[in-house]
Amino acid sequence: MENMVASSASSALSVRNPELRKDRINNRWVIFSPARSKRPSDLKSKSPATNPNPKQECPFCVGHEHECAPEIFRVPPDSKSDWKIRVIENLYPALSRRIEPDPSSDDLDRCLVLNGFGFHDVVIESPTHPVHMPDLSASEVGDVLLAYKKRILQLASVDSIKYVQVFKNHGVTAGASMSHSHSQMIALPIIPPSISLRLEAMKEYFDQTGKCVLCEVPSEELLVDESTHFISVVPFAATYAFEIWIVPRNHSSHFHHIDSEKAVDLGGLLKLMLRKVSLQLNNPPFNFMIHTSPLQIKESQLPCSHWFLQIVPQLTVVGGFEVGTSCYINSVFPEDAAHVLREVSVDKKEQLC
Amino acid sequence: MENMVASSASSALSVRNPELRKDRINNRWVIFSPARSKRPSDLKSKSPATNPNPKQECPFCVGHEHECAPEIFRVPPDSKSDWKIRVIENLYPALSRRIEPDPSSDDLDRCLVLNGFGFHDVVIESPTHPVHMPDLSASEVGDVLLAYKKRILQLASVDSIKYVQVFKNHGVTAGASMSHSHSQMIALPIIPPSISLRLEAMKEYFDQTGKCVLCEVPSEELLVDESTHFISVVPFAATYAFEIWIVPRNHSSHFHHIDSEKAVDLGGLLKLMLRKVSLQLNNPPFNFMIHTSPLQIKESQLPCSHWFLQIVPQLTVVGGFEVGTSCYINSVFPEDAAHVLREVSVDKKEQLC
Repeated sequence: MENMVASSASSALSVRNPELRKDRINNRWVIFSPARSKRPSDLKSKSPATNPNPKQECPFCVGHEHECAPEIFRVPPDSKSDWKIRVIENLYPALSRRIEPDPSSDDLDRCLVLNGFGFHDVVIESPTHPVHMPDLSASEVGDVLLAYKKRILQLASVDSIKYVQVFKNHGVTAGASMSHSHSQMIALPIIPPSISLRLEAMKEYFDQTGKCVLCEVPSEELLVDESTHFISVVPFAATYAFEIWIVPRNHSSHFHHIDSEKAVDLGGLLKLMLRKVSLQLNNPPFNFMIHTSPLQIKESQLPCSHWFLQIVPQLTVVGGFEVGTSCYINSVFPEDAAHVLREVSVDKKEQLC
Repeated sequence: MENMVASSASSALSVRNPELRKDRINNRWVIFSPARSKRPSDLKSKSPATNPNPKQECPFCVGHEHECAPEIFRVPPDSKSDWKIRVIENLYPALSRRIEPDPSSDDLDRCLVLNGFGFHDVVIESPTHPVHMPDLSASEVGDVLLAYKKRILQLASVDSIKYVQVFKNHGVTAGASMSHSHSQMIALPIIPPSISLRLEAMKEYFDQTGKCVLCEVPSEELLVDESTHFISVVPFAATYAFEIWIVPRNHSSHFHHIDSEKAVDLGGLLKLMLRKVSLQLNNPPFNFMIHTSPLQIKESQLPCSHWFLQIVPQLTVVGGFEVGTSCYINSVFPEDAAHVLREVSVDKKEQLC
């Protein structure tokens, strides 16, 4: 995030003034500073998340199931070596399912320490090592999304679990230690800080306007693409360059209320966005996160909270300014990022598969 | 942050149960998960922030001043080629000092967009390329701290500037693009999100107890070292492994109220902590941040807000879980980190210089 010495290449570019934008969903300011970067369309990952040895086999590959932690379920349920998806325990979980939940966890405000009870699962998205999520068909990505749903429903039945974070790390610098395509789910006995803050901010908007902030139709400039049930946009105050949100068109507070038809529809749009990000930004490391609502609050009580899926290409390093302030510097204006992403041409034949 | 496959080396270690701890200063939970790591004393940086060519010269070196953006001041003020410290403009600033501040910025709650008015400065800490902060004497580090103070006082006279973030990035993966020892200061027309949240959390503690949370004496287990006016501790709910806070013993809301004697005293303790981090963790990339109070609130109005300096060794990669939840996973219990850091032996002769 530092550029302190002149280079003849970048100084030739015209400079747009920096701007601060308020992210109303997360209640924070983002600095847009295009002078600190190249042209938006020139921004690429310097360290693409390519697999150095695509023929390699690993414990997540079919035939290596015995090298993994216990399986929770597989898809299809009665499959043998012809499984498509496996949901397994993480062998080194961040939280433990084998200790008691804290009895005092109902009054969290007064607690300073809780037992580290929780669940940390892994979703293996394909039996085959070199296959990544954008290589799957829309329907197969939909099956992965339905596996998340099934596991969230299981976890929701555990009283002390308050929130489930679904996330995917792709590439070493995005936090992945395994290159075999997978995602993760951590079920927590607390509502994490950023979810509480988002809920508060969305409630404030609802109280002021009578509307859910994510039900509002976004500016066309920010739209990347759309499907029957979802839209994909670069948010008005995107924290990260080329960040994309996939948002359900109709109000829905919880991801796990998704049905099979919508899962396939979302699968197609997610696949398309990941292909566009990969083609435009040189297969960058990325994360995606499903931002849903706390488990124990019902849909009818959450007219302000609308779930969405956030895709974050990891193109820059976070420094002391961001660590210290939680105020991020984005070198690409959201309208420019959306324009570039709209223009990326993805082979139609490939999209149909 | 992922470890999903058994390794014979780590499975031999005894496993302590994970725990969640509430960070009362930042009002967030941190997950302590030692099963995901080696022994605390074995944790080292895999990519030390060594300078590949210590004899190299760069635009921050003495004699290259003309390659930099304009100078704001130097130390000593009337020095020529014998300067010790230079405070200069950042050539590619995140915010611009050359545009008008937003006239409506007094009513920030209603604004969605602000002009990107602000200041982004660089503090060159030494005229010589291979000299890093821990190589300076306590008095010389004190001079760097007094340069921060002088610049903050200048920036505080600008009406629309609400907060100044001082930070240092050391090593490429901690955000530094220049290896020559330097720090940065960004002056903002807003109070950043994490500062507002910290102020709220500290005020809540003060309202409940009548005490400033950082005036309380920390547990001995968490203490790393101390000087006449400061203590260094690993915080009870440290976000990052081996994170250290240096805290003034006596209540003080604003860093820039520091005097020369305290600056030299802090210089000595900061130098010692950076040496310990470097020796123990294999010269890791790191950030430090000075967490102070908003400029326009007076000391007398802030009995709850106590400034501190946070040192963060960058030992792990942040993944989608942390990006999504702002809930961090720390593999080293704070008491263990403090114990390891207390034990690191730094040459006394070196410390005296």
